[in-house]
Amino acid sequence: MLFRAEVTVRLKSGILDPEATTIRKALQHLGYDCHSIKQAAVYELEFRADSSDNAIDLATKMSQQLLANPIIHDYEIKLINGKAGS
Amino acid sequence: MLFRAEVTVRLKSGILDPEATTIRKALQHLGYDCHSIKQAAVYELEFRADSSDNAIDLATKMSQQLLANPIIHDYEIKLINGKAGS
Repeated sequence: MLFRAEVTVRLKSGILDPEATTIRKALQHLGYDCHSIKQAAVYELEFRADSSDNAIDLATKMSQQLLANPIIHDYEIKLINGKAGS
Repeated sequence: MLFRAEVTVRLKSGILDPEATTIRKALQHLGYDCHSIKQAAVYELEFRADSSDNAIDLATKMSQQLLANPIIHDYEIKLINGKAGS
């Protein structure tokens, strides 16, 4: 079955995010009273799996192997609609 | 009041995303049967505003001016908890 999963990858708390700092400063420079910014990347994957459990398992492996760096990133996996098709 | 908004920025459909293509190919190379990948960036902003309407208005302006490029990106704004504090 075709499954669709959304993997959200964000920096662990305590890890510096210079890109977010730059964006915050740029927003303040443009006149916005922005206190803090956190960034995350979202990957929407479509892949074949036997079951929901198998799909979550595969998405976890893909995250650990490629999408996230487990040393600095936290990731979160959400199956969309359980399945995306067949 | 302090508001928290989540701005999701993704490429408009039809715009090529070579980074996503590279990730898809890398996943396939690693043995995952991944059909498609879509990427998005999420910014979690914390800023002061007078009301929810004003907060959405400000987040829209920030998205248009800095976070997204309206020519190639779609963006979506979601207020989290209505307000994040006071």
